[in-house]
Amino acid sequence: MKHMGSNTWAFAAGHIPLKSTGPEPENTSRDELCFLNTGPGEAQVDITLFYNDQDPVGPYQLKIPARRVRRIRINDLINPEAPPLDKDYGAIVESNLPILVQFDRKDTSQAENSILTTTGIPLQ
Amino acid sequence: MKHMGSNTWAFAAGHIPLKSTGPEPENTSRDELCFLNTGPGEAQVDITLFYNDQDPVGPYQLKIPARRVRRIRINDLINPEAPPLDKDYGAIVESNLPILVQFDRKDTSQAENSILTTTGIPLQ
Amino acid sequence: MKHMGSNTWAFAAGHIPLKSTGPEPENTSRDELCFLNTGPGEAQVDITLFYNDQDPVGPYQLKIPARRVRRIRINDLINPEAPPLDKDYGAIVESNLPILVQFDRKDTSQAENSILTTTGIPLQ
Amino acid sequence: MKHMGSNTWAFAAGHIPLKSTGPEPENTSRDELCFLNTGPGEAQVDITLFYNDQDPVGPYQLKIPARRVRRIRINDLINPEAPPLDKDYGAIVESNLPILVQFDRKDTSQAENSILTTTGIPLQ
Repeated sequence: MKHMGSNTWAFAAGHIPLKSTGPEPENTSRDELCFLNTGPGEAQVDITLFYNDQDPVGPYQLKIPARRVRRIRINDLINPEAPPLDKDYGAIVESNLPILVQFDRKDTSQAENSILTTTGIPLQ
Repeated sequence: MKHMGSNTWAFAAGHIPLKSTGPEPENTSRDELCFLNTGPGEAQVDITLFYNDQDPVGPYQLKIPARRVRRIRINDLINPEAPPLDKDYGAIVESNLPILVQFDRKDTSQAENSILTTTGIPLQ
Repeated sequence: MKHMGSNTWAFAAGHIPLKSTGPEPENTSRDELCFLNTGPGEAQVDITLFYNDQDPVGPYQLKIPARRVRRIRINDLINPEAPPLDKDYGAIVESNLPILVQFDRKDTSQAENSILTTTGIPLQ
Repeated sequence: MKHMGSNTWAFAAGHIPLKSTGPEPENTSRDELCFLNTGPGEAQVDITLFYNDQDPVGPYQLKIPARRVRRIRINDLINPEAPPLDKDYGAIVESNLPILVQFDRKDTSQAENSILTTTGIPLQ
């Protein structure tokens, strides 16, 4: 299968809940970026995070192997800087090859969890 | 990074829940517009709200600084007119520079909250 | 403001929950189509519903006044035929003028409600 | 009505919850693909599932009758291989005729269920 999707994706409504309920790490409140690389080449991905009170931080660099999915918790990004909890952020994802990206949130700040999802906004 | 996205965005399913549960303001039921301005210029944004029984209200004017996110609770818009709770509305967002806009709702009308999100509909 | 959006919108994942909890009608489980007509003309809208075991039903006809939103519960459509509860359906929305359409579900089949939303899929 | 939509759709954030609460099968936690075929021809659909630690699996073949919806639980796919629970996956849907595809999740791992939805990402 060939590479599908877009080289650039945007997300405007990031926010990792501060609180979590239940055993870690499967019940940790989190924002996740879900990558799908349908093609034969490994994709080199740069994530840049935007905030409301400081300059953008990045790139967070990662690889999506050929013909694989990869799911990244924003909470788990470390280099160049761990993103803060309970703070609004946006994300731009740039890849050297076309990929697909979707955004998932699991909010476990209460006993009964809430979930949401949306596709990224593909750019050119 | 350059400006990305669209100059015009639409949302058709606005509705701020009437009731809230838990400490204010972090638990107030709300609709939020989440803006991401990836570029070097400050974006001038006009929001127009549409209702089912009166003429559109706006523009609500705001600025999104260069390379920043900004999140606006519809509940907190004041000028020219505070939007009513528990009433259907739609929104058109017009910006002088390309931006990205996503819609989030947190419904705390019950003890266990519900959340949803969707990207805006980009227009030409 | 001019007419914005698309003349045709699609939704593939309709399903009205059978059960509801709490006072009617504000707590009735429902699927809703949320329309936004930004322009100066009244939009004439035809909705066609598709099922998995019978021919499509429609058109359900309605008008979206100029510069207004209108929200329709699928549960409340009657003519030509009331849609069944607890059954999968899809919807095609056709309008004589460009409009915007979003899909909302409120599931009150349990004490703690769940909500979801997605924009329609715009077609040419 | 003619065929509408796209021949190829992508989903990047699949994950079937491991646990379910309540009577089966209506309360089984599940990911669903919701198909809408608006046209006069039967659509032949191939689904390919992508994982993070093995090669893609597929095609899962199915037919969407003319002018019908069809909803498939990922949990119920069997041939060539039943997808595992509690594991990240992505999906590419390829159809010989244009169709519409939406993704729904019902998570019943807790007493109070959560739901989410998103449209697929249409590709050329």
